Amino acid sequence: MAKKYRVGILGATGTVGQRFAQLLEGHPQFEITAMAASDRSAGKPYSEACAWKLPGKIPASVRDIVVTPIEPPLDCDIVFSSLPSSVARETEEAFARAGYPVISNSSSYRMDEDVPLLIAEINGDHVGLIEKQRERRGFGKGFIVTNPNCAVVSFAPPLAALHRKFGVESVFVTTMQAISGAGYPGVASLDITDNVFPYIAGEEPKVETEAQKILGVLGANGIQKADFTVSAQCFRVNVIDGHTASVRVKLRQPSTLEEVVDAMKTFPSLDLHSSPENFIEVTDEPSRPQPKLDRDNGNGMTITVGRIFPDNIFDYRFVALSHNTVRGAAGSAVLNAELLISKGLI
Amino acid sequence: MAKKYRVGILGATGTVGQRFAQLLEGHPQFEITAMAASDRSAGKPYSEACAWKLPGKIPASVRDIVVTPIEPPLDCDIVFSSLPSSVARETEEAFARAGYPVISNSSSYRMDEDVPLLIAEINGDHVGLIEKQRERRGFGKGFIVTNPNCAVVSFAPPLAALHRKFGVESVFVTTMQAISGAGYPGVASLDITDNVFPYIAGEEPKVETEAQKILGVLGANGIQKADFTVSAQCFRVNVIDGHTASVRVKLRQPSTLEEVVDAMKTFPSLDLHSSPENFIEVTDEPSRPQPKLDRDNGNGMTITVGRIFPDNIFDYRFVALSHNTVRGAAGSAVLNAELLISKGLI
Amino acid sequence: MAKKYRVGILGATGTVGQRFAQLLEGHPQFEITAMAASDRSAGKPYSEACAWKLPGKIPASVRDIVVTPIEPPLDCDIVFSSLPSSVARETEEAFARAGYPVISNSSSYRMDEDVPLLIAEINGDHVGLIEKQRERRGFGKGFIVTNPNCAVVSFAPPLAALHRKFGVESVFVTTMQAISGAGYPGVASLDITDNVFPYIAGEEPKVETEAQKILGVLGANGIQKADFTVSAQCFRVNVIDGHTASVRVKLRQPSTLEEVVDAMKTFPSLDLHSSPENFIEVTDEPSRPQPKLDRDNGNGMTITVGRIFPDNIFDYRFVALSHNTVRGAAGSAVLNAELLISKGLI
Amino acid sequence: MAKKYRVGILGATGTVGQRFAQLLEGHPQFEITAMAASDRSAGKPYSEACAWKLPGKIPASVRDIVVTPIEPPLDCDIVFSSLPSSVARETEEAFARAGYPVISNSSSYRMDEDVPLLIAEINGDHVGLIEKQRERRGFGKGFIVTNPNCAVVSFAPPLAALHRKFGVESVFVTTMQAISGAGYPGVASLDITDNVFPYIAGEEPKVETEAQKILGVLGANGIQKADFTVSAQCFRVNVIDGHTASVRVKLRQPSTLEEVVDAMKTFPSLDLHSSPENFIEVTDEPSRPQPKLDRDNGNGMTITVGRIFPDNIFDYRFVALSHNTVRGAAGSAVLNAELLISKGLI
Repeated sequence: MAKKYRVGILGATGTVGQRFAQLLEGHPQFEITAMAASDRSAGKPYSEACAWKLPGKIPASVRDIVVTPIEPPLDCDIVFSSLPSSVARETEEAFARAGYPVISNSSSYRMDEDVPLLIAEINGDHVGLIEKQRERRGFGKGFIVTNPNCAVVSFAPPLAALHRKFGVESVFVTTMQAISGAGYPGVASLDITDNVFPYIAGEEPKVETEAQKILGVLGANGIQKADFTVSAQCFRVNVIDGHTASVRVKLRQPSTLEEVVDAMKTFPSLDLHSSPENFIEVTDEPSRPQPKLDRDNGNGMTITVGRIFPDNIFDYRFVALSHNTVRGAAGSAVLNAELLISKGLI
Repeated sequence: MAKKYRVGILGATGTVGQRFAQLLEGHPQFEITAMAASDRSAGKPYSEACAWKLPGKIPASVRDIVVTPIEPPLDCDIVFSSLPSSVARETEEAFARAGYPVISNSSSYRMDEDVPLLIAEINGDHVGLIEKQRERRGFGKGFIVTNPNCAVVSFAPPLAALHRKFGVESVFVTTMQAISGAGYPGVASLDITDNVFPYIAGEEPKVETEAQKILGVLGANGIQKADFTVSAQCFRVNVIDGHTASVRVKLRQPSTLEEVVDAMKTFPSLDLHSSPENFIEVTDEPSRPQPKLDRDNGNGMTITVGRIFPDNIFDYRFVALSHNTVRGAAGSAVLNAELLISKGLI
Repeated sequence: MAKKYRVGILGATGTVGQRFAQLLEGHPQFEITAMAASDRSAGKPYSEACAWKLPGKIPASVRDIVVTPIEPPLDCDIVFSSLPSSVARETEEAFARAGYPVISNSSSYRMDEDVPLLIAEINGDHVGLIEKQRERRGFGKGFIVTNPNCAVVSFAPPLAALHRKFGVESVFVTTMQAISGAGYPGVASLDITDNVFPYIAGEEPKVETEAQKILGVLGANGIQKADFTVSAQCFRVNVIDGHTASVRVKLRQPSTLEEVVDAMKTFPSLDLHSSPENFIEVTDEPSRPQPKLDRDNGNGMTITVGRIFPDNIFDYRFVALSHNTVRGAAGSAVLNAELLISKGLI
Repeated sequence: MAKKYRVGILGATGTVGQRFAQLLEGHPQFEITAMAASDRSAGKPYSEACAWKLPGKIPASVRDIVVTPIEPPLDCDIVFSSLPSSVARETEEAFARAGYPVISNSSSYRMDEDVPLLIAEINGDHVGLIEKQRERRGFGKGFIVTNPNCAVVSFAPPLAALHRKFGVESVFVTTMQAISGAGYPGVASLDITDNVFPYIAGEEPKVETEAQKILGVLGANGIQKADFTVSAQCFRVNVIDGHTASVRVKLRQPSTLEEVVDAMKTFPSLDLHSSPENFIEVTDEPSRPQPKLDRDNGNGMTITVGRIFPDNIFDYRFVALSHNTVRGAAGSAVLNAELLISKGLI
């Protein structure tokens, strides 16, 4: 059995930190050796510091790890970060500078031009930015890679399938996002029970800018962003996990419905531990995808797309769904780390 | 005190029928004198035939009315109909032919070219179709008027404000619709708890076609439909009452954000008993409108619009909300009847 | 028109503070003249300081009142307090000492032997404690009266009806409490969506002790508490407003089901502005009471009782329901103030 | 690899039928070879006949099984039945008479004196009734065994632990039951969103009678029922899966809190494929058990008990939770079949 990489979690007690703990339990390539959280938690065993909110128990392997402050050095080879943006920028840099690969779920560095913003199946080659990043920032062997905003992850994969084949010109997306996306305590029950909440701070700009970078082309001068426009309206709905996106898309090149469906169905999956058998799954049942029934497809790593129809203004409309705290957060970060290992970068 | 019009309710025991009973309690112009429902209910007092599902009690004035079969003659001057579409077409015609003004909430006649599809504040002049309708169908003094699909009502009013001032070319709408729209028992709790349901049978075609008729112009040859295109994706969300619409609109004529807001704010209200002080209310709070907080604005008859911003693909985006069983159903029908009285047609 | 009492609200921006504002809008005896809240809010107009969370608008009469710090003097004749227990004890005493009648919804003084714990219809005569309270605490003309814990209010009224007639010996109560009882932001949506939360801090002891004081007898030596025992298990469920109580009761004196129902139905109501026509309403529909359908009975001031049956261990079982933020909080406080006026104590 | 028993599901397309299909996928002892459902479904492949409502896909092994009518003979060795009570009595008898072991989740035969009502860990020896059943009913090699009502399963296990050690005299239970217990479409969303529903048809009598049989002693004259009394009030709450029971218990023999906790913790588990490592799991976290977090303990087969405290009227109070469609239905039936195999009865 191969030696495992020793992993540290930054923001270990939060919602995404808990998902990291859950997803890494029994992982063949990683073992958690450090749990870092706010000063309030530091010094306590993880089982005490953490108000565990996921179904199932705190994984046995992390229960007794004593939580440390969020600063290097940590007793690990790699760090996964789910820090709030307020502190992520400075802290993640400190870790990269101290030589750690930083696999970040935070938004701070996503749009920096020398930082890969990765969906492993789509733009794994963007890890090519790492060399430039190290030079430019004087990082030594550390570096930062990021995964996208959870709402972007719900529709970027089918968009990628269409963009590669037909070119995308414009995209309207309306998201119906799950409460778990706001962390814990997060959304107040009085704000979402019997309600739709029409505002998520800072979300629409992220949704309107990240996909172009993800679908951009890496060249000598960095990433040439994809030249489509995204218009986003983002809503919170009363769903625990699973972001649903209502999408219309205008293509640059004519295509039949069959070709569109085929482009999604045949978009390649990867063969990494956390990558699902089907990266994109297409359903033709009229009432699917549904968060409750489809968020766990591919262990939460599959994007499910349905209701693909010709649109009467743009070319096509469809509904896309992803599990926001797995594929949209911790799961994507873990997959990114697996990708980096497969490419010899860790 | 003026004589009241005697009203019969067709489909009296259903969800919308109950709203009629509630809204007409104490109404200055109407009193319910007949309750018609399926054969199973006929012969029982309303309080027994009806599984009352609205907060509050069955109105005292209708408790003891004995339910009759749904066929003319009924002991009343006007009928309000909330029949399921399967039976509405035939039954409503029978009532109109028997001389009753039929104020219908059903979809059967909405798109018939000689039947007004009314939002009183927008196209009250379309009652001009009634004369032609009577002639063509040989109705005598009876006639049929309809009100729109509940999802259409959520965004047609702000659309009307924009269309009148600037001309609308294209509209994308994604609806997040309340469970009450499906009647009772309607949506199964297992389908909507912790879920979004991406399909409402027959809804998207209605949403894509009704607004053009409502905003059409009545001429010698009937209604000339408005020449914009609507693209609709309709979702059911876990909200009791209140349909939320996420809207982007492309205008024919340039306009500033201020002009757009002003067009909505100044769209005229009416002075009828059930018409709200503000037909359209515009809010600039970032997290409004919300179904829970805004559906009851204007006693459920106001359309609340917020998050009006320039869009990066079309011209503007906004969020619109209406109470689907009041303004979107029974309340609109009652308002239509008041309009007809004010125009001397009842 | 009579002069109105000028009212100050302590904790004006909180959930209960907002209910006070709503319930006092247009009240014939009171007008709000002072809004006191935490230092963070002080100095701002109420409409800005307050994140209004109730359906409907901030009442026009309070929108522009500038929020002041929570300390005497306030520009008013009476104060209603909904302060958190952490500060209530000291602050309410300061107001009473400064001469204000303090009508408190907080728990701090409820069990103090010289402080009335009032449900107006049940133990209005306990205001007789006020004289002793003033003497003992040297309050001058100020004083403190309290209303009970919201969960107690759901079952104490039917209990009172039974205790008066037959004597109560033991009571098992299991509560299913609404999220609004925890204020705002209060219960996290992740804790209550698709869930039952089996713990409400400090609640079970309150439910087990307050009813005995409320149903106690005022004598020369203060209140002789009622000699029954209450066992409480308290749960939070996914309901916005309305506490439901599952109750079994053992009586001291034999009684028929008919007598039990009759005792509840005939328990006297009051004739004050906020007291409902029926203090206790008994329903014999098998599936009532329900929070959604019955919490607003009597404008939220009626207790609805149903499913009254003989029990196979104790004597009777029943289900009782009250609106926790109206009858269980602000509404009871307002009613208490009306009671004090009627008795010449304000 | 041992030969597998061939299984038929009666009521295969319903909610419990779907759980059977899910739980038996990959089971080492069983393979589904027959799916029987109403005439409407008969003749279609299962994947078409069944509106699959569980997360995840229809198991591949049953997708193509053609649904047959619900009558013997079926192509299988054993039948699992989840028929509605209206048809269960007659149909299950027909299968038993035709020689099939019938493992039933229906209520029809539960209280028949010659039919075992099994919770495998508690009263597995009650299978001793089968011989008598065969004789009395002339069944040949067929027979019927049943599992209890889903609400009973939530509290009978901790009750068994106490009854065995200390003797139980009286039990008050208030249940908060999940919507999945009513099947599909089952509970209307309008009845349970923002609501508690205080009535479940036929439930309270079942909860008040089944535990005494389960905890009874099998003797020469059949089962001597346990001599305690259960008082039940049953509520439906807005939870998808997981029944919560609020319980007070009066014991016959004094016991300390430590002994009570110990009795539950040490109650023996079994070593069958579907039996969990811990039949009863005791938690001392103040806010547990919770349906969302604890229903999947032991793959849905563990009963989780918490908030065990001395009661001020009875001896002890606690909160118990079980997964109502796994341990409370299909999972218990599968476990019963495993028990019967282990005892050589299948």
